[in-house]
Amino acid sequence: MYERDTIAAIASAPGTGAIALLRLSGPRALSIAAAVAPTLPLDAAARHAYFSPLVDASGQIDEGLVTVFHGPRSFTGEDVVEFGVHGSPYVQQRLLEALTAAGARTAQPGEFTQRAFLNRKMDLSQAEAVADLIASQSAAQHRLALQQLRGGFGKRIEDLRQQLIDFSALIELELDFSEEDVQFAHRVELAALLDRLLDLCTELISSFRYGNAVKQGIPVAIIGAPNSGKSTLLNALLQDDRAIVSDIPGTTRDTVEETLTLGGILFRFIDTAGIRKTTDVVEQLGIDRSYKKAKEATIVVLLGDASVKNEQAFALEAGMLRERIGEGPVVIPVLNKVDVAAAHPTATLAISAKHDQGIAELKQRFLDHVNTLHTGPADIVVTNARHVEALTKAREALQGARTAIDAETGGELLAVDLRRAQHHLGAITGSISTDDLLGSIFSRFCIGK
Amino acid sequence: MYERDTIAAIASAPGTGAIALLRLSGPRALSIAAAVAPTLPLDAAARHAYFSPLVDASGQIDEGLVTVFHGPRSFTGEDVVEFGVHGSPYVQQRLLEALTAAGARTAQPGEFTQRAFLNRKMDLSQAEAVADLIASQSAAQHRLALQQLRGGFGKRIEDLRQQLIDFSALIELELDFSEEDVQFAHRVELAALLDRLLDLCTELISSFRYGNAVKQGIPVAIIGAPNSGKSTLLNALLQDDRAIVSDIPGTTRDTVEETLTLGGILFRFIDTAGIRKTTDVVEQLGIDRSYKKAKEATIVVLLGDASVKNEQAFALEAGMLRERIGEGPVVIPVLNKVDVAAAHPTATLAISAKHDQGIAELKQRFLDHVNTLHTGPADIVVTNARHVEALTKAREALQGARTAIDAETGGELLAVDLRRAQHHLGAITGSISTDDLLGSIFSRFCIGK
Repeated sequence: MYERDTIAAIASAPGTGAIALLRLSGPRALSIAAAVAPTLPLDAAARHAYFSPLVDASGQIDEGLVTVFHGPRSFTGEDVVEFGVHGSPYVQQRLLEALTAAGARTAQPGEFTQRAFLNRKMDLSQAEAVADLIASQSAAQHRLALQQLRGGFGKRIEDLRQQLIDFSALIELELDFSEEDVQFAHRVELAALLDRLLDLCTELISSFRYGNAVKQGIPVAIIGAPNSGKSTLLNALLQDDRAIVSDIPGTTRDTVEETLTLGGILFRFIDTAGIRKTTDVVEQLGIDRSYKKAKEATIVVLLGDASVKNEQAFALEAGMLRERIGEGPVVIPVLNKVDVAAAHPTATLAISAKHDQGIAELKQRFLDHVNTLHTGPADIVVTNARHVEALTKAREALQGARTAIDAETGGELLAVDLRRAQHHLGAITGSISTDDLLGSIFSRFCIGK
Repeated sequence: MYERDTIAAIASAPGTGAIALLRLSGPRALSIAAAVAPTLPLDAAARHAYFSPLVDASGQIDEGLVTVFHGPRSFTGEDVVEFGVHGSPYVQQRLLEALTAAGARTAQPGEFTQRAFLNRKMDLSQAEAVADLIASQSAAQHRLALQQLRGGFGKRIEDLRQQLIDFSALIELELDFSEEDVQFAHRVELAALLDRLLDLCTELISSFRYGNAVKQGIPVAIIGAPNSGKSTLLNALLQDDRAIVSDIPGTTRDTVEETLTLGGILFRFIDTAGIRKTTDVVEQLGIDRSYKKAKEATIVVLLGDASVKNEQAFALEAGMLRERIGEGPVVIPVLNKVDVAAAHPTATLAISAKHDQGIAELKQRFLDHVNTLHTGPADIVVTNARHVEALTKAREALQGARTAIDAETGGELLAVDLRRAQHHLGAITGSISTDDLLGSIFSRFCIGK
């Protein structure tokens, strides 16, 4: 099925730690382990941590714990050996070199999980969940990844797809007997199955709006005139955030965006330039970019200065913003600096970012909006763009098949649509996969997983 | 002996990896593990990796491998439980919080190793070697740390110290019977023991010059006039270096020094400003700093431009440099740009950094010099400044005792010196230790070790 060599990698995070973990997987894992761990018994008990010196041709590298997992009862389904060693980069690298010198090949990113998939230890959507789980930064991201890892909607799709395959077989049989005009496949039952699948696809596709927002973090743009207090508001929003991952190195995003975790949901704040009427060409470019970012955001906070702007004028401004950015994002108009304003706004959310007034209410508005995104059942949330694409194509084919039944057209068109639907549904769980697809999925993993 | 609570820490390197490792140590380790790993059997087999979901009050955190090491057969000598989980910072942090919620305390840096020392799983010099091993960046650093971890000179010191204690007891007994003028301790044998100990101390102290150089990396200063080709030489030295640790993130030093590994030895290149006669005050400050750095280096490469300077003039320059920096570092005069020089130097090492000529010979000179630092037996190399300090004080006391024997002074002075010697020797292996000492040693460890 695939090249059965033995792969090795450093599996713990790169750098210096107290302990580092390396692992081997493949048919020669046990003999390669024996070459570097001379006191490991030849008949090492499964899942038992043996203490052993670890050596290469130049001498001792370290001493550490060596644990053997015999296939198929292992993560990859192959023989797996794990090494727990002192967490020096030098020791890690030298042990990895000793393992390759003894016959292993250094693993590609995601190759351990890919082998788990190829050995049917998990379906493709579960394998993808492993990468999501490792990358998760908030409670909601983590919950969705864990759901998907535990089977999620993959099993439901696979069950319905199996029923579809059974029907297809009957339809194909009808085609073989087409001159006799028989019907082996019960059309009413098939229509009911197609309806169930169409409902599931629709539910899953619409859950992606929420799933993707949670996975990527909800983009929030704060937009407003210069000096309306955008930075002060951002600081006020962030000051109470003790995001669970923020203390840990290695989680910083490449962009300069600030992030905030509210109710387990990650919000990403997008920096925008102040907007105002200007004749300066360069400044106008910056303002155009601000509108573009607002358009791409999920939530837009339109910030006004209550001390210089009245509520009616501000409402007009909100209308103009809506025209510029379209119906995509929700717009939350907010009047700042109410502590120094002559009149207190009545219909608009009024805050004082400086004095931390109204901030809790604004945060609640953020959360309320995220909840409106999530309409379906809690356990079927699609977070993966590849799944949405496959579901959309599957739905097209299913609708074609449904129409063919209603129109009582011949079995040929029906058979084609059923085959297409099976194909696209199968691509989600990996029942149907290509090398290209697998390559593109697993190359995004970290090495050692 | 110490507060017997149960400690928890993330033991693998911080950040995102395929797998992360957390561990617990202490009397409640098993019950705390059972609280977060509900399927872990109550009578979990020792050193067996159980697959279990991992939970907290809010639900499932992850699923992973849980391995129990019953004390005293564990790293710390206490009950230890290790958790291998998906390497997401979120999962790591949330599992650590679940462990503390279940009754563990987050560990201080080095606290696992400190407990191993307190439970007599290793002596103090071995515990210190754990930190050195984790920090090791070159083959030589690693070899010395591993030697020390496996007992190194600690056992030899401890054996001799035990004999010293026996003699001391006899001397103290003589003091009790001082009116009778008896000698229980055989003076010739005691003198022989003291001589052996004095030799060992001297050997160990002098090995520190090599040990410290290897541990810290050998500082090399390249000094010379502007445009003599210092940067080109540095690049030429570094270009073939495939330092084993250079590919691994997290090993970069804070300073801008470049490092080179030759023959398993780490060399640190110190940046210096070009030196020349100047009236510019600021430039002169930079030049003074260059001389200061050269003075602190182990090796100084004095670089001259062969195309503008003749060999005799350059030799004078080397003499002047020696006067400025003293006898500490070795000075290697090198004439660069011989490819465009009118005359080829005869007595001076001649190179062309640009064309990679003479670079291999210069590297060999570096290695030759390091080898001259290492005089004693290979297995007794002190790398730790604390050990040198204790050895120096012990040697003083031993010499005092030796003198007292030769001078046939009374037992009182001899007894005082023997007690002092025992104390300082005991401090190396931790047979004698104070809380302050332990605190200062273990606080330098990373968390989780």
